[in-house]
Amino acid sequence: MYTERIRYPQLLNKVMTADQAVESIQDGMTVGMSGFTRAGDCKAVPQALARKASTGRLKLNLLTGASLGHDSDAVMAQAGVLAKRMPFQVDPTLRKKINQGEVLFIDQHLSLTAEQLRSGHIPAIDVAVVEAVAITAEGAIVPSTSVGNSASFVQQAKQIIVEINLSMPLALEGLHDIYVPEARPGRQPIALTQVGQRIGSTAIAIDPERIVGIIITHTPDSYSTVTPPDGETQAIAGHIVRFLEQEVAQGKLGPSLLPLQVGIGNIANAVTYGLLDSPFHDMTMYSEVLQDSAIALLDSGQLSFASASSLTLSAEKTQHFLENLEQYRDKVVLRPQEISNHPELVRRLGVIAINTALEFDIYGNVNSTHVCGTQMMNGIGGSGDFARNAHLAFFVSKSVAKNGDISSVVPMVSHVDHTEHDVDILVTEWGLADLRGLAPRERALLVIEHCAHPDYRTELLDYYQRACKRGGHTPHILHEALSWHDRFQATGSMHVAQPELEMV
Amino acid sequence: MYTERIRYPQLLNKVMTADQAVESIQDGMTVGMSGFTRAGDCKAVPQALARKASTGRLKLNLLTGASLGHDSDAVMAQAGVLAKRMPFQVDPTLRKKINQGEVLFIDQHLSLTAEQLRSGHIPAIDVAVVEAVAITAEGAIVPSTSVGNSASFVQQAKQIIVEINLSMPLALEGLHDIYVPEARPGRQPIALTQVGQRIGSTAIAIDPERIVGIIITHTPDSYSTVTPPDGETQAIAGHIVRFLEQEVAQGKLGPSLLPLQVGIGNIANAVTYGLLDSPFHDMTMYSEVLQDSAIALLDSGQLSFASASSLTLSAEKTQHFLENLEQYRDKVVLRPQEISNHPELVRRLGVIAINTALEFDIYGNVNSTHVCGTQMMNGIGGSGDFARNAHLAFFVSKSVAKNGDISSVVPMVSHVDHTEHDVDILVTEWGLADLRGLAPRERALLVIEHCAHPDYRTELLDYYQRACKRGGHTPHILHEALSWHDRFQATGSMHVAQPELEMV
Repeated sequence: MYTERIRYPQLLNKVMTADQAVESIQDGMTVGMSGFTRAGDCKAVPQALARKASTGRLKLNLLTGASLGHDSDAVMAQAGVLAKRMPFQVDPTLRKKINQGEVLFIDQHLSLTAEQLRSGHIPAIDVAVVEAVAITAEGAIVPSTSVGNSASFVQQAKQIIVEINLSMPLALEGLHDIYVPEARPGRQPIALTQVGQRIGSTAIAIDPERIVGIIITHTPDSYSTVTPPDGETQAIAGHIVRFLEQEVAQGKLGPSLLPLQVGIGNIANAVTYGLLDSPFHDMTMYSEVLQDSAIALLDSGQLSFASASSLTLSAEKTQHFLENLEQYRDKVVLRPQEISNHPELVRRLGVIAINTALEFDIYGNVNSTHVCGTQMMNGIGGSGDFARNAHLAFFVSKSVAKNGDISSVVPMVSHVDHTEHDVDILVTEWGLADLRGLAPRERALLVIEHCAHPDYRTELLDYYQRACKRGGHTPHILHEALSWHDRFQATGSMHVAQPELEMV
Repeated sequence: MYTERIRYPQLLNKVMTADQAVESIQDGMTVGMSGFTRAGDCKAVPQALARKASTGRLKLNLLTGASLGHDSDAVMAQAGVLAKRMPFQVDPTLRKKINQGEVLFIDQHLSLTAEQLRSGHIPAIDVAVVEAVAITAEGAIVPSTSVGNSASFVQQAKQIIVEINLSMPLALEGLHDIYVPEARPGRQPIALTQVGQRIGSTAIAIDPERIVGIIITHTPDSYSTVTPPDGETQAIAGHIVRFLEQEVAQGKLGPSLLPLQVGIGNIANAVTYGLLDSPFHDMTMYSEVLQDSAIALLDSGQLSFASASSLTLSAEKTQHFLENLEQYRDKVVLRPQEISNHPELVRRLGVIAINTALEFDIYGNVNSTHVCGTQMMNGIGGSGDFARNAHLAFFVSKSVAKNGDISSVVPMVSHVDHTEHDVDILVTEWGLADLRGLAPRERALLVIEHCAHPDYRTELLDYYQRACKRGGHTPHILHEALSWHDRFQATGSMHVAQPELEMV
């Protein structure tokens, strides 16, 4: 039984239930789990940890690739399992506990967690828990639909628990390229110079003696909940495609562009769909996650290769992808997130990075994480890894939220994740502001005119002009700079209340 | 005449005055000049440009390596020569014009300017003006005390002006290692894996036909004005040395540490001097600038190799270095700033980065550039290139300025250059806050207790505790967050006015 999936015979007697496996996980430990944008996460262990916590104190530091599926973060947070959580999450229940200060969240660049573990900056992994499609005859672990930080977790962990997921086709084997940079000093260059190049192995090599438990699961990934493009996200996509067409026309980019990175979410997915209607061909993707739109571009033939750390697809596209895996085999690779997001590679390849902003300010600073400067949304994810080193760093957002009560373009962002040094181009449904080579005062006028919702342009311009009278390289009126957020918190709208007509 | 310095005979007839040479520089052009932290800058052309501007409109985009010496930026700013200026400056006259909006300044990561030129993101260089110690028999340019962006400027420029500085000893030849990354796509890894490795050539190879003028100068560099360590900067150095000793004791670093980067200025210089009293040996430096303290560490034998883009020394150390060049020849290399600061190399080598903050906040965000969020001081320089990719990113500051009226530790920084994602360790004369692996609420308590001046601790703690009652991952009270800066602008002090005793 399972001999097709567990080919290292000595491990067959390690098959056990999740409840048995989590006996090796003790209060105070640091646990590293697979899972990146809901793909390839462990299905059984999070639930078993929650059950175990009901019988006695169990507080863990939990590291993952990125977000988990199946409400796992909610289940563990509710059960009080999470003391610290890093480097990313998207769960509403966990988010609430983070913002209440009950769970300590560390919001990290996704390329950096493995480096910090290797350097001893954060506590070492006691137990790694990873989903796999198989264990090879050499005892190596074949990941499923994501790689995330699994290779680094498994390298460092004293004990390893593997979830073999029978719902994942064995055909996934061979899709992965596992390469982990050496410790410093003495590290060598990462040899990757082309998106489709393989520089590592197809499975995570380990000493199989450290595997203490194998759990058999049958649950598919949580499917992507991305929504189809709407008028606004299509407008954003249109601005970007037209801009890239101009760059090609001016000879600054070739007709295959440079490798694309597109963040997770509805706007980014719509932008990628927008490339279906573009003249670009033989494009490549060097991203952290592949969404439905990337598969559509592969199917149309416009995308020749896609490299990422995870596959996060809708139910329909998952079925399509897994059933037709053979036709994608030479066009897709899944890498550790340290490699998919590595500054060395992003800079060398010259990635075109498109990520979503929560808000941005008139000078080009971007907030990706904190609502009104205080409440954590999800985390910075890989946006900084890509934007800082990209050939072009785009940030996109709808111009307003909450039925127009929130402007995504503000005088000063309430939290900074990306400084104006790292932001090239801002886009909303109203237009695109190309900030390259512009000083702050030039940027402000362009951002207000091209990106802000018309309902907010007058107020933004008024702020900017009054700030300019006070002078400064980056003119601001400090006691007003965050007043838009303050007003929203107090009144439910960033709009200045108009005097009622009856009162006039 | 000059045949020792101009070994490509066809160029001997290009020797001319600076006023003749600048005839090739026309209104509206983009000019790229040598010079990095006052070292290796052009001595004659800036003055000639100012004279030319008095005879007719001459507005230029001026790109340099970093700051210039000899009041060149002041002279050009006063003469109205500067339309745009990037990527860094330190001049009081120019700074005033930037803050008045008269000169458009673009504040850039110092590794990024050459990449942006290559990518066509900023206007191409029309004329490059570089200081040299010699032109080789092949027509290649041998830089003087800095490399900066000269290689990239010269590669791209239609016309080149060379200032041969006879005050620079010919023995500088051979100290440089010129390597420029290829355009994308198709770029290869940068082969450097050790601080002392040479990967390029000793001179900047060009087609000498593009040299339109050679000017002979005799003026030395502006000397460094760095002041000796004082009690506070020595205390900061002590905290850092003790911290690094602990890292060695815990096995997280070896006794040679990892390559050091130390920013420009008094505090950074004092920190480097502090290493003279440390047990570390066989250290290396992978920095953008070498100050007096680096030479002292080379002389003591504790530093085995120093790589940088410029030498910025006091008059005394300059003389010492130039007179004893032979003994430094195998211990020092000068590289283009794109290489000295390159994210690929900083991450691979695992640089320990120590840079100065203007202010930082209780959550670990750092402002390096803007006084009260609006007035540009100097620019971000290379601090972001290093901090983002460093093995350890330190930011240092004295805890107060202006006789205690400004606290360098504030509730929220008034401008963000380095986000909390990129800041590992904060240090003032009062102590060190190790923020690795800490969530914002943990960071705040540590920063207040270890780094803030005692006179401000109670007020900071009060702000933090009241913010916590409102909740959030990063608790803030938005309408108070920037009130300390606002109070300073209004009253000249960040202190809350105390009720006078007579009134009680």
